[in-house]
Amino acid sequence: MSKELTSRAEDYSKWYNDLVVKADLADHSAVRGCMVIKPYGYGIWENMQKALDKMFKDTGHQNAYFPLFIPKSLFEAEEKNAEGFAKECAIVTHYRLKTDPNNKGKLIVDPEAKLEEELIVRPTSEAIIWNTYRGWIQSYRDLPILVNQWANVVRWEMRTRLFLRTAEFLWQEGHTAHATKEEAIIETKQMLDVYADFVENWMAVPVVKGIKTENERFAGADDTYCIEALMQDGKALQAGTSHFLGQNFAKAFDVKYVTKDNKQEYVWATSWGVSTRLMGALVMSHSDDNGLVIPPKLATIQVVIVPIYKGDEGLAKVSESANAIKEKLQAKGISVKYDNRDSHRPGWKFAEYELKGVPVRIAIGERDLANGTVEVARRDTLLKETVSIEGIETLVENLLKEIQENLFNNAKARNKALTSKVDSYEEFKKVLDEKTGFILAHWDGSSETEEKIKEETKATIRCIPLNNEQEAGVCIYSGKPSTQRVLFARAY
Amino acid sequence: MSKELTSRAEDYSKWYNDLVVKADLADHSAVRGCMVIKPYGYGIWENMQKALDKMFKDTGHQNAYFPLFIPKSLFEAEEKNAEGFAKECAIVTHYRLKTDPNNKGKLIVDPEAKLEEELIVRPTSEAIIWNTYRGWIQSYRDLPILVNQWANVVRWEMRTRLFLRTAEFLWQEGHTAHATKEEAIIETKQMLDVYADFVENWMAVPVVKGIKTENERFAGADDTYCIEALMQDGKALQAGTSHFLGQNFAKAFDVKYVTKDNKQEYVWATSWGVSTRLMGALVMSHSDDNGLVIPPKLATIQVVIVPIYKGDEGLAKVSESANAIKEKLQAKGISVKYDNRDSHRPGWKFAEYELKGVPVRIAIGERDLANGTVEVARRDTLLKETVSIEGIETLVENLLKEIQENLFNNAKARNKALTSKVDSYEEFKKVLDEKTGFILAHWDGSSETEEKIKEETKATIRCIPLNNEQEAGVCIYSGKPSTQRVLFARAY
Repeated sequence: MSKELTSRAEDYSKWYNDLVVKADLADHSAVRGCMVIKPYGYGIWENMQKALDKMFKDTGHQNAYFPLFIPKSLFEAEEKNAEGFAKECAIVTHYRLKTDPNNKGKLIVDPEAKLEEELIVRPTSEAIIWNTYRGWIQSYRDLPILVNQWANVVRWEMRTRLFLRTAEFLWQEGHTAHATKEEAIIETKQMLDVYADFVENWMAVPVVKGIKTENERFAGADDTYCIEALMQDGKALQAGTSHFLGQNFAKAFDVKYVTKDNKQEYVWATSWGVSTRLMGALVMSHSDDNGLVIPPKLATIQVVIVPIYKGDEGLAKVSESANAIKEKLQAKGISVKYDNRDSHRPGWKFAEYELKGVPVRIAIGERDLANGTVEVARRDTLLKETVSIEGIETLVENLLKEIQENLFNNAKARNKALTSKVDSYEEFKKVLDEKTGFILAHWDGSSETEEKIKEETKATIRCIPLNNEQEAGVCIYSGKPSTQRVLFARAY
Repeated sequence: MSKELTSRAEDYSKWYNDLVVKADLADHSAVRGCMVIKPYGYGIWENMQKALDKMFKDTGHQNAYFPLFIPKSLFEAEEKNAEGFAKECAIVTHYRLKTDPNNKGKLIVDPEAKLEEELIVRPTSEAIIWNTYRGWIQSYRDLPILVNQWANVVRWEMRTRLFLRTAEFLWQEGHTAHATKEEAIIETKQMLDVYADFVENWMAVPVVKGIKTENERFAGADDTYCIEALMQDGKALQAGTSHFLGQNFAKAFDVKYVTKDNKQEYVWATSWGVSTRLMGALVMSHSDDNGLVIPPKLATIQVVIVPIYKGDEGLAKVSESANAIKEKLQAKGISVKYDNRDSHRPGWKFAEYELKGVPVRIAIGERDLANGTVEVARRDTLLKETVSIEGIETLVENLLKEIQENLFNNAKARNKALTSKVDSYEEFKKVLDEKTGFILAHWDGSSETEEKIKEETKATIRCIPLNNEQEAGVCIYSGKPSTQRVLFARAY
């Protein structure tokens, strides 16, 4: 199967699309811009959800659920937010179909079932949630509210790509309400740290934490914090954002609370989200020309056992040993699949699990039985070795940890190699085109300069890194003075 | 707080609505017919999801995700299904808003962003899924497909009630594809059994398993199997359905497979679902005039510990003991909350956790410390007893089991008492009005009779019970011969 995969060198973008489809992660659907997440892909997303959900709960958050639809009058209440999303909204205008009088068996929208007020399919839920919070918050005793929602959202995109940019996607959106600005900022930063922890330690994808420029900020936020990752092709990918919303939504929806001193104050807000886009980042960080490489901590199948045998008797013998190994591994909490299907040959299975990115493959043959050995192959390096069955559970357990670390270290090394410091616009453009990756360069702090660089090079300021080194310099574009370098890249 | 609750005797319907809102399960939203599921309610739903999801996976199913929107041409492909849902569909017609030229800061639907083909917000996903399965299925080797989806769906309802009937609701929908009719029927029945198992053993709600009449069948199904529960007010509630879809969707979407004998055959289908409606069933089965009663297996807080003390020193002393108990309980896998808030008095807390339906409350006072005892109160019977702290973890563990069983047994006894055999239409109407509940009566098998009984009495045939006793009789309405009694009730 893997032979049909386009190589990265040949066409990185095609390689990505081919891989997502061929490895059964997702597929295009009959609905423009919407994807089908297939069971194998959804299982990985479920593992992501489980890890993130635990992190959210460990930091005191609870899940809730708010309506899919937002009445237009609520949607437009926070003007900047509304303006930011207006151009990509799916809009419900009718609530009934009727049979087409001119075409038996067909349906038409019933013109008599027009809604008095249009409903926006949520592109993000601040509006409906803050309208709800008004009823939940009276006094400082009602604060903080620490709520998260797992949901689908819709942002109408003209050019879509599986996982990376789809009209409908799945995500979580945290929405918190606080009595003070300080507390809200602490929450915003805390959730950025949670995201960085997850992306680095579960997805094995190193990130740069930073803050967005005004141009790149979430519509309606005072500040947007982000984590930026770098893909194998040297393009950046925003992996998660955490917004300090100030009192913007509290003011738009009139959400006030009575302080301990009996004063009325507007509530402070944050929101933060990651989405199925992370699946795209996972694929583009680790996978190779043979297929997916899934980090062990997120793999739905961590170990696959493939029997090599002749005839039913051979299978029976091998299976005894295979099942014993499977049980030992499962007792360690490792998820194992024993693929004893007779319909496919071992070579086909090897290619299949390579394509699917299963971290460890154990091949066990009739000859191995006599020696008490099996062949263990790791997906990341593709290296194989013959090992004793005795103690295999510890060996595999350690190997899974090693693979997880190795993937992270490789990605870190790549990021380092693909991060350049640049001091002139000429060099900037040259690096962008030839070397690609992250570029640290001086910028004069103006939106105009940022816009022009974007227009001319398609590179954007991914973020102003947190704890950035202060350094005097001049803007690569305008020559005006600058106090720090910011992180540029072309991005997904 | 509980004092503000309407009693069941006074107004059952108002009691239900009040309780759902006051106990923080859910609330109305600014969107017509849509609800907000609050954290406390959502936590219970998450426990339901966890239990069900494990049951689905244990029976070989995997989760996946399909688009929220269904293009109208796909939606209408299976005509019966389309006709059944056409009148309650939310329809997306536009994909962009623009600023209102006549009203600064306001938005209007951009008439230039009209979709070529309208999109239906899924009321159920057979159409989009079977259109997808066409691409997944070529040969018998691709079957069965055993897929489930957790999702939101929208059915435009004119009269809505929290959890029971809302325009948007959350559910799971299983969609399976099989090579043979027999296998599909086995799957349909298996999932009905899974639902019955869940509703009885987790929710403590006894059900009658049965099959729907043609009138009550899912639009597009050959057979609809269901589980029917009985609420405290004697009204029935359909708690889950499992549909044998025959080859209807395979034919509508041209999904064929090559058999082992190299013939082309249409694929056989099932679908099955339960929704947040189960939350309504949970509330209406067990709760009382003091508030919710949550079965221990689904309670997010199984045990609450309330300290009774004077001053900080008193609290410190009590807390030491309370925390020790908490740890012992948690070691047993019991979820415990120690409510040491100084802002509320013990009496307020007692009422609050009663309202929230926490199964077991432990009160621990300074005086108790000397005696080595605590007061344990159970929510179902409201009985209290003083018990030794020594061995409390085993006592509470057993008590939780006992409460779970007691709730189920009470509901079973109620169902039995509220099930009547009736042999005349006069008696039928009398029982419906005075005693309420399930009525087993003879019916001539015609849709006409069923319709007339429904028009005249608002009672519907809930189901033809599975393994129904065959018994000769005459239809209570038409006097025509009948071979078995069917289950009637007024229903939610």
